Amino acid sequence: MSDLYQAHRALLDGAVEASRQRGFWAAFSENPKTYAEGAAAEGKAAFAALLNAPFDLPGVAAADRVGAEVSPFGPALGITYPAPDVAALVAAGEKAGAAWAEAGVETRVGIALEILARLNKASFLIAEAVEHTTGQAGPMAFQAGGPHAQDRGLEAVAYAWQEMARVPGAVRWEKPAGRSTIRLDKDFHVVPRGVGLVIGCATFPTWNSYPALFADLVTGNAVIVKPHPAAILPLALTVRVAREVLAEEGFDPDVVQLAPDTAERPITKDLAAHPSVGIVDFTGSSVFGGWLRENLRDKLLFTEEAGVNTIVISSTKAFAAMCQNVAFSLSLYSGQMCTAPQTIFVPAGGIATDEGHKSFEEVARGIAGAVDALLAEPARAAAVLGAIQSSATLARIEAARGLGRIVRDSTALQVEGARTATPLILAVDAAETGAYLEERFGPISFVVAVADAAEGVARATAAAREKGAITAALYSVDEAEIASAVPAYARAGVALSVNLTGGIYVNQSAAFSDYHVSGANPAGNACLTDAAFVAGRFRVVCVRRPAAA
Amino acid sequence: MSDLYQAHRALLDGAVEASRQRGFWAAFSENPKTYAEGAAAEGKAAFAALLNAPFDLPGVAAADRVGAEVSPFGPALGITYPAPDVAALVAAGEKAGAAWAEAGVETRVGIALEILARLNKASFLIAEAVEHTTGQAGPMAFQAGGPHAQDRGLEAVAYAWQEMARVPGAVRWEKPAGRSTIRLDKDFHVVPRGVGLVIGCATFPTWNSYPALFADLVTGNAVIVKPHPAAILPLALTVRVAREVLAEEGFDPDVVQLAPDTAERPITKDLAAHPSVGIVDFTGSSVFGGWLRENLRDKLLFTEEAGVNTIVISSTKAFAAMCQNVAFSLSLYSGQMCTAPQTIFVPAGGIATDEGHKSFEEVARGIAGAVDALLAEPARAAAVLGAIQSSATLARIEAARGLGRIVRDSTALQVEGARTATPLILAVDAAETGAYLEERFGPISFVVAVADAAEGVARATAAAREKGAITAALYSVDEAEIASAVPAYARAGVALSVNLTGGIYVNQSAAFSDYHVSGANPAGNACLTDAAFVAGRFRVVCVRRPAAA
Repeated sequence: MSDLYQAHRALLDGAVEASRQRGFWAAFSENPKTYAEGAAAEGKAAFAALLNAPFDLPGVAAADRVGAEVSPFGPALGITYPAPDVAALVAAGEKAGAAWAEAGVETRVGIALEILARLNKASFLIAEAVEHTTGQAGPMAFQAGGPHAQDRGLEAVAYAWQEMARVPGAVRWEKPAGRSTIRLDKDFHVVPRGVGLVIGCATFPTWNSYPALFADLVTGNAVIVKPHPAAILPLALTVRVAREVLAEEGFDPDVVQLAPDTAERPITKDLAAHPSVGIVDFTGSSVFGGWLRENLRDKLLFTEEAGVNTIVISSTKAFAAMCQNVAFSLSLYSGQMCTAPQTIFVPAGGIATDEGHKSFEEVARGIAGAVDALLAEPARAAAVLGAIQSSATLARIEAARGLGRIVRDSTALQVEGARTATPLILAVDAAETGAYLEERFGPISFVVAVADAAEGVARATAAAREKGAITAALYSVDEAEIASAVPAYARAGVALSVNLTGGIYVNQSAAFSDYHVSGANPAGNACLTDAAFVAGRFRVVCVRRPAAA
Repeated sequence: MSDLYQAHRALLDGAVEASRQRGFWAAFSENPKTYAEGAAAEGKAAFAALLNAPFDLPGVAAADRVGAEVSPFGPALGITYPAPDVAALVAAGEKAGAAWAEAGVETRVGIALEILARLNKASFLIAEAVEHTTGQAGPMAFQAGGPHAQDRGLEAVAYAWQEMARVPGAVRWEKPAGRSTIRLDKDFHVVPRGVGLVIGCATFPTWNSYPALFADLVTGNAVIVKPHPAAILPLALTVRVAREVLAEEGFDPDVVQLAPDTAERPITKDLAAHPSVGIVDFTGSSVFGGWLRENLRDKLLFTEEAGVNTIVISSTKAFAAMCQNVAFSLSLYSGQMCTAPQTIFVPAGGIATDEGHKSFEEVARGIAGAVDALLAEPARAAAVLGAIQSSATLARIEAARGLGRIVRDSTALQVEGARTATPLILAVDAAETGAYLEERFGPISFVVAVADAAEGVARATAAAREKGAITAALYSVDEAEIASAVPAYARAGVALSVNLTGGIYVNQSAAFSDYHVSGANPAGNACLTDAAFVAGRFRVVCVRRPAAA
């Protein structure tokens, strides 16, 4: 067994320090050019070699195989994965978990960091897997599916480490008692909560799963990773790397298991409800999140669910740049991000800008025009939009056309075999809450006419409180207006971006700095990146006895 | 507004450091003699002045008054408390909570520490209130109800402070982007979860409530304190002190409210289920705890419930001292502690001791004899046993007599007017699980014959896993046996005391050192004294915008 903890100590220290400072920091480079020469080509080749074959997961014996992934860019992957049943998965997790629980914090942290380092080396292969399951364009699949996801995993390790490091191992307790002293020796044991279940989503299979996966792991819990049936490969590769490191370090690889299923025969409810599963992390629909919240008793449950992200446009000193910024946010990965804006409130009487007064119509058309400009060049359009992950989203776009006046219609890109759609932008009145206050996942947005910015802020924050929201944006040149809006957004538990222009977008959540999801509105019951996300995943048990002398 | 944070900074620093070291430390002296001369007499006089009168809670206007407390030592208190209805309580909490949420972490921490300091000054009065509601004897009511409870409250402040202090206020985020740099200014807002509800118990109204009360308070949540109808006064005094400090510091005193009710017209379920209540802390029965776990959705719920604490006696080098130690644990406050042992496993073939082999019967009689000796002197008996809080406990003792062979019968003390009972000790076989594996709250214990110590450990740890347990004890001279038992207790989530003799008892849980309740078995879903207990009581919301330069 190698000393992986010492080997990766600088990485851990950097992550801890970064999470305290919350300035910019990244452990894993988002720039593909900083990786080894040929790594990208090797990733592509490795991906190609996986296609149309059974996926090899050493140490997993399962009679069944499942897998029917189809790339949103066209071809079926043709990969099948070994699929143990629920009882076998849980039993293997419990068995492997016993030694893992007693491995000690530093051992577990060292192994987690080694897994992350190896995942980083596999970033190009994982990027291909993410691209061809989620429909993310290549550059985004690399960044969000690789280094950004790894940074989020590392962040969870850093938080969990800090919480566990605070628990001393052995302590001498000496209490003065009159003329004598009572002396006890105390040993504090970090004890896991139970088998952890991590339920992945179809759009960000690694980014949204790594925080839970690594938090469970370092706190001593065996983990069962249940991928979305449409995006198994990125997590299968992840689990394979984890098992490889575990086995090398002398642990039962079943500390981390893959639990693939099919849309026709889902196993998620059975897994989540199994009495031996103590922790459940879920990213996905509010319907399934609601089922989990309703049915899981006495389990630790963390959810990221649906929401309605909003923008309020009150005034701007940079009309063109604002429209470009909003257009990019609406277009990036075809709006299939939990952080993408959907509902844009604009005063019916228009707004003041650096280009003079702009009517409601001019603002709506300004954004629509910026989308057109962004997507004018086909290669760039493909790189920004990627593909549509699910055909249900295409149906949703079709149905949405009737919900308001079309400011910009959605069209398909000319990319053969790919399922694509450009942003649909609708104009509606504030009364049409049935249209713009339901999450309509995908490239669907609404420009909503309100009396004034104050009504926009009131509606935006009420929507966050009632429907959930992960992000919000506000454009205003009036500092007093901004200052009065901030507490309302804070109370609504939604991260607020003010006057964003240039190369930073409301959709983006930076590891070690931005808290992802607040847990304070219906978009999720937890933040994925804070102490509360990790602190309950372990317990402390004290053993005390009179000191020898 | 005074700078209470700076005034109490040393207290906070000491608490933070102590909770990291986990050696012995106490902020508030448990020795009555270290308090001001005459303080005890003043406390008695102040208590007497409260009797048979309406309790004055400035700023509370309620048409109804409730209160029917009767001292377990005899007299009815005759005190009534203003009792607003559920809607009024929640509305007032929400209203007061708005400014409290925005008060800032240091302001809230400073106020919490000032409240604790004033509660400490009121320790003798609170001790009288605890004594005459719970039945704790005077010395224990002072320590557990006063300084020990205050230390536990301070500990919660220290944990919550550490978690919140980790969130920076304002940060400049600078990301290199090719030749330029993206600069954002970020403000992180600590946002409360919602109105906190703290449900007190009848035996330790302050000790078991202060961690939640102070954790809610410093994390920005308005708090509604719902005392047990039989033990309102200690929390009414606490709430009065808190409101006094809040008002002096310019806050609406309704940040902390008292919600008294009666056994006949309970309001707890309505309060807990109210949509504006975001956090519920409960100490009490598993029946009500189960209702809360079953019915509260999307709320943060912390429970301490019932359990069966065990002792396994395998061998000892100090038979007499062991019997004395166990006898004290069974007798202290008549076994009405959540940490008191109930079930003592002893090998049927007897054990090895420093006094030679002792048969099962000799061990049982040794413990019973030590109880007799401890309680032989009436004044000492009264000081150890106190009184029985509830008449239901007397009935429980009566019913328990039929559950096994009586080794030591329970009798009443000759204290006029007081409801008292000495320990009942029964001998049963291991098969009689229906007798010894149900919590029988009060001075009822079982000596259970097992094949050997290994069976005892197996049954003790299984009981902890299945029925819940907060404490466990093991007596053994065999280090290998101890070493092999430790992981089983750790997995069962129960704090283990090994070979205790002398002036330290399995019942005792020391602030800043012992974790109280593990949250890892059915005795409670939370530890009252760790980061997980505080970290979810607030959320973080980020506001970010492009930096000016």
